[in-house]
Amino acid sequence: MLPKAVQRVIEQFGRLPGVGQKTAERLTFYLLKQHSQKLEDFGDAVKTLRQNLVFCKKCHNLSETENCIICENPKRDTSVICVVEEVLDIMAFEKTGDFNGLYHVLQGVISPVNGISPQDLTIDALHKRVENQNIQEVILATNPTIEGEATALYISKLLHPLEVKITRIARGLPTGSDLEYADRLTLSRSLQGRQDY
Amino acid sequence: MLPKAVQRVIEQFGRLPGVGQKTAERLTFYLLKQHSQKLEDFGDAVKTLRQNLVFCKKCHNLSETENCIICENPKRDTSVICVVEEVLDIMAFEKTGDFNGLYHVLQGVISPVNGISPQDLTIDALHKRVENQNIQEVILATNPTIEGEATALYISKLLHPLEVKITRIARGLPTGSDLEYADRLTLSRSLQGRQDY
Repeated sequence: MLPKAVQRVIEQFGRLPGVGQKTAERLTFYLLKQHSQKLEDFGDAVKTLRQNLVFCKKCHNLSETENCIICENPKRDTSVICVVEEVLDIMAFEKTGDFNGLYHVLQGVISPVNGISPQDLTIDALHKRVENQNIQEVILATNPTIEGEATALYISKLLHPLEVKITRIARGLPTGSDLEYADRLTLSRSLQGRQDY
Repeated sequence: MLPKAVQRVIEQFGRLPGVGQKTAERLTFYLLKQHSQKLEDFGDAVKTLRQNLVFCKKCHNLSETENCIICENPKRDTSVICVVEEVLDIMAFEKTGDFNGLYHVLQGVISPVNGISPQDLTIDALHKRVENQNIQEVILATNPTIEGEATALYISKLLHPLEVKITRIARGLPTGSDLEYADRLTLSRSLQGRQDY
C-alpha cells in the first residue's frame, strides 16, 4: 500500500535492534519530511561507515590509522591494560576521564552457547602483549554477566604464569540505586567487595 | 575519539526523533558489524526515499503515480471521505480492513502555537472535493487531541453549508484498557458517546 521506496526504508530501520514496526514507520515518515540533502547526508554516512576503518593492530579499537589514537598517544600509561568486550566500552571508560592506560578489545565474550571460543576473540593477542611488553597491571573489565565473568576468569588463569597484577572492576550497587530493589547477586557482591571506611 | 565516519552515523541517528546518544551509538555499532552490502542497501534506501514520490492529487496520500492506489482502486466507495492528519493514519485505518471509502490527508493540524493555519493544510482541496463530487459522508478522523478536535470543529463548520453528512470517529475507552486508570476526559467522552445495548 505504501510506495516501495518508503517500505524499503521502513524495512531497513525495522532490522535494527530494538526498532519495531511502529518505530520504523515513525522514523521513516520523519525522514520523509526532511530536505533531500539531509537524506543524502544520512545515506552517505551509512554507506561510508566502514570505509577506511580498521581495527588497531595493538588494542583492536576502531581506528582510521594502523594504531588507534589511544595507543598512539604518548601521554598514556603503557604499563596498564584495561580489557573490555567491545569498542563502545572504551568510550564509556574514556568518558569517566579516570583511566589513562591502554585498552584491549576482546571483540566479544567466550560463549559456548553461541559457539564463541577463546580462539574467536583477541585473547591470543592480549597474551602476547602482556608477555612481550612491560605491563604492570591488567584490569579485567568485561561485563558482570555470566559470560563476562567466565571470560575474565579464563583470561586471569591464562595470564597467571606471566606474573602480572590482574584486577577485576568492582561489582556492587550502582550509584543512585536503591538497596531494597537490588538483586541478590549484586547485594552479595557488594558485601564481598566491601571496603574500609 | 571515535573515527569520523562512525561519529557521523551516530550524529545522523541521534537526530531522529526519540533516538538518544546511547541508542544512536548502539545502532551504529550494530551496523558496523554488518556486511558492507547491507550498509550499501541501507544507505541507498535512505538516499532514494523521496525519489519518484509525490502526493496524490486527490487525497494527498503518498504515491508513486499522480493518483494513489486507493484513489485509483475502482472497488473503493467514492461517496465517503475519511479525513486524517497524516499519511500514516491511512495505514492504520487500512490495517483494520473496516473502511472501504476514500481518504483525505490534511498534512497536519491547525495549530496557532506552531503557526499552522488552515491555509497551510489541504483543507481547501477537501472543500473542493466535497463541493464538486458526489460525497455522502465526511468522517473526521483527526487525533483526539486539543488541536485535532479544533481542526475537526473547523472543518465541520466549513463543510456545513454543503449539506453533507459529517461524522467524527468515536472517542472513549480503548479496548483492553482499565476504567480505573482512564483519565477524566476519556471517561466523560465514553459516557457522552454511550450507545444502546
